[in-house]
Amino acid sequence: MPPHVYIEDIANYTGQTVTIKGWLYNKRSSGKIRFLMVRDGTGIIQAVGSFADLGEEQIAAIDTLNQESSLIITGSVRADDRAPGGFELMLNNVQPVSLSLDEYPITPKEHGTAFLMDHRHLWIRSKRQVAILRIRHAIIKAVRDFFDERGFTLFDPPIFTANACEGTSTLFHTDYFGEDAYLSQSGQLYGEAGAMALGKIYTFGPTFRAEKSKTRRHLTEFWMIEPEVAYLDLEGAMKLAEDMVEFVVKRVLATRSKELQDIERDTKILEKIVTPFPRITYTEAIGILKQSDHEIEWGDDIGGDEETTISNQFDRPVIVHHFPSAIKAFYMKRDKNDDRLALGFDMLASEGKGEIIGGGQREDDRVVLVERINEHKLPVEAFGWFLDLRKYGSVPHAGYGLGLERLVGWICDLPHVRETIPFPRMMSRLKP
Amino acid sequence: MPPHVYIEDIANYTGQTVTIKGWLYNKRSSGKIRFLMVRDGTGIIQAVGSFADLGEEQIAAIDTLNQESSLIITGSVRADDRAPGGFELMLNNVQPVSLSLDEYPITPKEHGTAFLMDHRHLWIRSKRQVAILRIRHAIIKAVRDFFDERGFTLFDPPIFTANACEGTSTLFHTDYFGEDAYLSQSGQLYGEAGAMALGKIYTFGPTFRAEKSKTRRHLTEFWMIEPEVAYLDLEGAMKLAEDMVEFVVKRVLATRSKELQDIERDTKILEKIVTPFPRITYTEAIGILKQSDHEIEWGDDIGGDEETTISNQFDRPVIVHHFPSAIKAFYMKRDKNDDRLALGFDMLASEGKGEIIGGGQREDDRVVLVERINEHKLPVEAFGWFLDLRKYGSVPHAGYGLGLERLVGWICDLPHVRETIPFPRMMSRLKP
Repeated sequence: MPPHVYIEDIANYTGQTVTIKGWLYNKRSSGKIRFLMVRDGTGIIQAVGSFADLGEEQIAAIDTLNQESSLIITGSVRADDRAPGGFELMLNNVQPVSLSLDEYPITPKEHGTAFLMDHRHLWIRSKRQVAILRIRHAIIKAVRDFFDERGFTLFDPPIFTANACEGTSTLFHTDYFGEDAYLSQSGQLYGEAGAMALGKIYTFGPTFRAEKSKTRRHLTEFWMIEPEVAYLDLEGAMKLAEDMVEFVVKRVLATRSKELQDIERDTKILEKIVTPFPRITYTEAIGILKQSDHEIEWGDDIGGDEETTISNQFDRPVIVHHFPSAIKAFYMKRDKNDDRLALGFDMLASEGKGEIIGGGQREDDRVVLVERINEHKLPVEAFGWFLDLRKYGSVPHAGYGLGLERLVGWICDLPHVRETIPFPRMMSRLKP
Repeated sequence: MPPHVYIEDIANYTGQTVTIKGWLYNKRSSGKIRFLMVRDGTGIIQAVGSFADLGEEQIAAIDTLNQESSLIITGSVRADDRAPGGFELMLNNVQPVSLSLDEYPITPKEHGTAFLMDHRHLWIRSKRQVAILRIRHAIIKAVRDFFDERGFTLFDPPIFTANACEGTSTLFHTDYFGEDAYLSQSGQLYGEAGAMALGKIYTFGPTFRAEKSKTRRHLTEFWMIEPEVAYLDLEGAMKLAEDMVEFVVKRVLATRSKELQDIERDTKILEKIVTPFPRITYTEAIGILKQSDHEIEWGDDIGGDEETTISNQFDRPVIVHHFPSAIKAFYMKRDKNDDRLALGFDMLASEGKGEIIGGGQREDDRVVLVERINEHKLPVEAFGWFLDLRKYGSVPHAGYGLGLERLVGWICDLPHVRETIPFPRMMSRLKP
């Protein structure tokens, strides 16, 4: 049998005879010619078969194939600008592997979201979903390459944690051989231990949030990337975050242009994502919101609608920094010039997609940190090991958390986060 | 301030003045000279300071520094074969950042395992632990590069699953907004859906097993890599597995030789890990075990001690294949020439380290698969979506699961799996 090749590599085989193993995506016939659209998970190619080349028996076999039937085809690769993807396979053999035993549920017609979600295991075969999942992979690889090339060490924090440090209301609980355990919402605290050991680290793993919210931005199970760097300050963390986002967007544009086209993404918008990103203080953000008639006062949290208003002022992600310390986490370091402010930042994606990154500089003074823990009415005894990081050679350090699915949703311009991951988990969605 | 550099890059700065930001690992003095061993998470360097270069005040400051005090040092880089690591820093400035507020608990003397595990957040700062974690990262990166370079798409399976497909006894349970959910033990079934959509995929994420076992090979939370490939058979899966292991070992040897030296790993053993790996059938394995006076009969499972006996026959990992179908999972395809045999394989690491990989070809016939599910007394209704993969264009396919921590433990030659991950989770270990 001629060499088995994948459709994404087809351009390397122009003029050669190859074998493709895949599934029937669509077909049509025109007189004595059959046009098969065959997918193999890396792309879709048009395969053209004639009575003259295939003979009556094989044409009859083709005519029995229904949508998603599996098949092995052999033919010569021909460049043709009119063909979808720019190449065609001129068939000389078609070998059906397995017919679909029933009519394939996902037809080219429109389907409701609930129906598609119930058939997610099949929906992911669709051209658009394949493109999104391939872009997701490219984004993950780009993020990892960014940190790996800069000397970061990957540091996998635990998922099971003994203490519900910040309250149990949004934590998933499990019985751990008779003890209470909770699924991690963030690897940051462990990441700080990692940064003290390894200098600069990043975590990359699933995190869990039992939030009773059904918005288009929330999953119960989502992947987070959390770099943490010893001897880094707020400024350094903001720079790292914008460099990372620029790197990832450039890489996706360079390596996944076909997939971006498949999902009809306006790449001109992505091409504008270059550093430096605009930066505004929280106080400036409140000013913008007031001018845009939002009812908001200094000290209030910035919600989803407000984020949209702010991000619509800019053609690239915008960094908002120096938030009121009162609305930020206990571990965030305060501005030494103004105690009301925390050395934290958020990055809001462009196109109104909302927050994709949150981070800042951490409190590195043990005494102050204990004070904060008490102010927030948290159980100080649960933080013994975390306080040890300030006891033995404390250093300034900073980092941030990036929500992978929100990044994928923004880069792909998806209205809902559910299509950014193979099997999304939401409040009312645990299957398939 | 001269440029901040990391110790792992120090060779690029010979003769130049640089700044290093880190922690005091150890120190000694000899007359008017001070020798500081400084670590920054990427390496350890000897810094040499004299009264003449630093002045009395800075020497006095040095003399107050205790173990793990943080400090910023500046000096010129000098190549010196006698120095640990081959380079020294000739100090011209030492700036203490923060002293250890108490005596650092982990001193150069021996500590018990329980003590070290209780102080895991500090233990990971030790040279040996840093080396292991950096090797772990290199292994992860190598595995990902292996699959990425071969056109695989990363496919993140869900952690929350609704059905306890193979019984709940070793599953962690959580309440999911009133529904029962279980933490995934394996992404394989979802990976099969991914392979049908994307051709060839790999999963890479944490998996969970509530096993009441306290062996040196078991974690409750561990990372698995599970490639799954459409149109692949048992032979192809075994080839993929051995190529991957060879690739990973070669990469670690090439990029982490310093760390392998730090942990005193015999790299000659690792240099022998080249394909093809020896392959024996299960039946041959039973023969070897009987000759070695194990009490075992054809049809029995091969346990840890037996694995050690088999792997001691070879200087590289050995693949055992064609197991009795009765002791293998319901989804494993049977040998068409002998129904008693399953098209499955295990890879046993060398040096008696036991199984690191298990996999094989999957049953792709819907009718046969339903039979198997019933034979195993599993709830067929829970497998609806899994059976759909055989309903719509079923294809032969195969894959395997690789336990990351076992791979790390083997490559690093560690007696216990607990040192292979930053914060190990075991039956009696949920903290820190």
